[in-house]
Amino acid sequence: MAKYLIRSMILPMTGPDDFYEQGEIAIDGDTIVAVGEKGSAPADFVPDRILDLPDDVVMPGLINTHTHAAMTLLRGYADDMPLMPWLEEKIWPFEAKMNEKDIYWGSLLALCEMIRSGTTTMADMYIGQEQTAKAVLEAGTRAVLSRGMTAFQPEAANRALQENIDLFHQFHNGGDGRLKVYFGPHAPYTCPGEFLQKVKREADRLGTGIHIHVAETRSELATIRERYGTTPVRWLEGLGLFSGRVIAAHSVYLEEEELEIYQKYQVGVAHNPESNMKLNSGTAPIPQMLSRGIAVGIGTDGTSSNNDLDMFGEMRTASFQQKLTGTPDLLSAYEVLNMATNGGAKITGFTGLGRLAPGYKADLISVDLDQPHFYPRFSIPSHLVYCARGSDVRTVMVNGKILMEDRRLLTLDAKTICLEVEKRAKRIGAEVKNLL
Amino acid sequence: MAKYLIRSMILPMTGPDDFYEQGEIAIDGDTIVAVGEKGSAPADFVPDRILDLPDDVVMPGLINTHTHAAMTLLRGYADDMPLMPWLEEKIWPFEAKMNEKDIYWGSLLALCEMIRSGTTTMADMYIGQEQTAKAVLEAGTRAVLSRGMTAFQPEAANRALQENIDLFHQFHNGGDGRLKVYFGPHAPYTCPGEFLQKVKREADRLGTGIHIHVAETRSELATIRERYGTTPVRWLEGLGLFSGRVIAAHSVYLEEEELEIYQKYQVGVAHNPESNMKLNSGTAPIPQMLSRGIAVGIGTDGTSSNNDLDMFGEMRTASFQQKLTGTPDLLSAYEVLNMATNGGAKITGFTGLGRLAPGYKADLISVDLDQPHFYPRFSIPSHLVYCARGSDVRTVMVNGKILMEDRRLLTLDAKTICLEVEKRAKRIGAEVKNLL
Repeated sequence: MAKYLIRSMILPMTGPDDFYEQGEIAIDGDTIVAVGEKGSAPADFVPDRILDLPDDVVMPGLINTHTHAAMTLLRGYADDMPLMPWLEEKIWPFEAKMNEKDIYWGSLLALCEMIRSGTTTMADMYIGQEQTAKAVLEAGTRAVLSRGMTAFQPEAANRALQENIDLFHQFHNGGDGRLKVYFGPHAPYTCPGEFLQKVKREADRLGTGIHIHVAETRSELATIRERYGTTPVRWLEGLGLFSGRVIAAHSVYLEEEELEIYQKYQVGVAHNPESNMKLNSGTAPIPQMLSRGIAVGIGTDGTSSNNDLDMFGEMRTASFQQKLTGTPDLLSAYEVLNMATNGGAKITGFTGLGRLAPGYKADLISVDLDQPHFYPRFSIPSHLVYCARGSDVRTVMVNGKILMEDRRLLTLDAKTICLEVEKRAKRIGAEVKNLL
Repeated sequence: MAKYLIRSMILPMTGPDDFYEQGEIAIDGDTIVAVGEKGSAPADFVPDRILDLPDDVVMPGLINTHTHAAMTLLRGYADDMPLMPWLEEKIWPFEAKMNEKDIYWGSLLALCEMIRSGTTTMADMYIGQEQTAKAVLEAGTRAVLSRGMTAFQPEAANRALQENIDLFHQFHNGGDGRLKVYFGPHAPYTCPGEFLQKVKREADRLGTGIHIHVAETRSELATIRERYGTTPVRWLEGLGLFSGRVIAAHSVYLEEEELEIYQKYQVGVAHNPESNMKLNSGTAPIPQMLSRGIAVGIGTDGTSSNNDLDMFGEMRTASFQQKLTGTPDLLSAYEVLNMATNGGAKITGFTGLGRLAPGYKADLISVDLDQPHFYPRFSIPSHLVYCARGSDVRTVMVNGKILMEDRRLLTLDAKTICLEVEKRAKRIGAEVKNLL
């Protein structure tokens, strides 16, 4: 693998005051060996290539901690509807018509969009994840994959669990460590307690984590209250689900005592502000989580509830939503950047991710600041959260390999992927229509 | 002036079902002469130039109904602070150090960003508006300008009013009708009743409108309640302020009876969702306004409370904010697009704006849909609101003149403007620091 020297502004995300105006990063293979002001690379470091990006700020790659990549197939298929008709009449019938190849191409499209908007790692949950795994291996990004499992029928649930186990054996630690496999029981209201405990035993046996939707909507609260007489978080705690590594997506409705439970078990939270707004889910108590030291990452959720995969927009919305429902000093720009980098690294469990520092993985992006919407340059963190868009990302590197340069994708053929997804999505749409 | 034929997808904003997959628009001078499917231009129409944009959707230029353009100088200067310290310690001391040339360059920077993100018309309120007028004339866009007037001191207030009158005489209907001048009394809590009535008499005398902040924050409500024992809207109605054309920016806190007042006087509303979220102002009752037939446009507010001027992001936030605080079916994609085009045209008072139709002004933009985040193409309105970013705009035309082509600005030199603003903003920042 190659040695790179990158010269640019650098926001290493190692602390709120750390910034290099004329910085440099030395990379050897998949690892960062030096970060600092110009001249800080070791004297004997001889790069194969120098990337001169004086107008860009280089920062850690963004970590999308909760998404359903292949749902790009459903982008714009149904919007502006109440939740249950939207799911029952639109989303579920469409998903029932998707085949393995659809999922492969839908995942590739998501990865095109992610790389183009600076996301280098995703935590994905969906069906057909071996197809998504292949797409990630091709794209060159990093991912935590989990087979989304509902358990309405015991047989189907057991098959799904076996698929998740197979996925683990086939892909966990694959792609030079770029892939992890977690278990993906969908949610407390779609999986009975016995099934959740069975999943947990498998996760423990294989030494891996769990990715699950928790306390996302008022209707989930009502369902769990009716079925079990308690709240989703207390119920999951009682089942023993929180003893290992857990990504608890959404976590919108948490009482004080439930925040304590998260804190005690070090449950990681994937916060999805745009989905929570668009679907009227609510506002998660993120500042309260952060003040307790709970690890929080940011996620986009799938494109049927967002509808893009742009983590820059997601960061802005994360801050604005808290400011609207709380006070204008909540979730500062730096705190939000920290969630999208260090927070994401913590909850996905990748070591050496989320910051630019010696010994860390060379997962980084450059953002082109030489554009009207970034002037004047009073605060780089503020500009990255409140002004930047995914399209401002110029360069993307993962594990020491350049995936996008000057906005050209180097591992994926976007044109072919877009047209293939267009064809497949329209085919599925037509099949659903014929059913009705 | 030239004759153009544009071939592209077309979303004319003439009705929810109107869309041309392979459309064409014929333009003669500043006016649209035909819009429809391929072949619908008159047989004798001979264009000077054909713009072939098969992968773009062409739509009316976006109308930013409330902004303070020159505040680009303050972008990122102060964020994440409570409202009053933010204003008193940061924004106001900075503004006190701005000179006329600063305002000129700050306005130019805003116009670069606006054109690059598809905004063709703005309603601006600020000091030094003759400088902003010059900038708009150079840029080639359209604007309603108003001298922002506070009236804490009678002498200064009278000087400001005279400036607004002078501005009217110098620029109203200037630039081939691209400029209008309104009067800009800042807000009910910064202008006593007598002054507001004096301003209204001048506006009536000159036959023009008023642009004013109304019912933006809880603190404004409390102040007006304390001073006058009523609400901002009722107080302004009592003063006779609503009898003519009015742009009431924000209008977050409106009771049922006040919505009736707006309806009765046909008060136009400039809705600023991102500013309202970032500054914790609140959520305006937009669906209630629309169901009463009140004209509502969308605005970004200034860059110190947003921090960009991207109307695409603003549209998305407008919808998401209502969905969060109401239900997920509120403010559909098409309704939001309608606010940003037809709604904006109505409240700014430009005739022949906001839609693409014969006899309408040739103010239009093209959005490059051949990108991963726009596939599959189930719904163009949904993609424009929930996926598009300002950077997806490829072409901008105002009054029949191309201002941006293939993302190159043709009337403004962005590089020079960015560097000049950087220098001036940093100078002002240093001057403020020396004061403390």
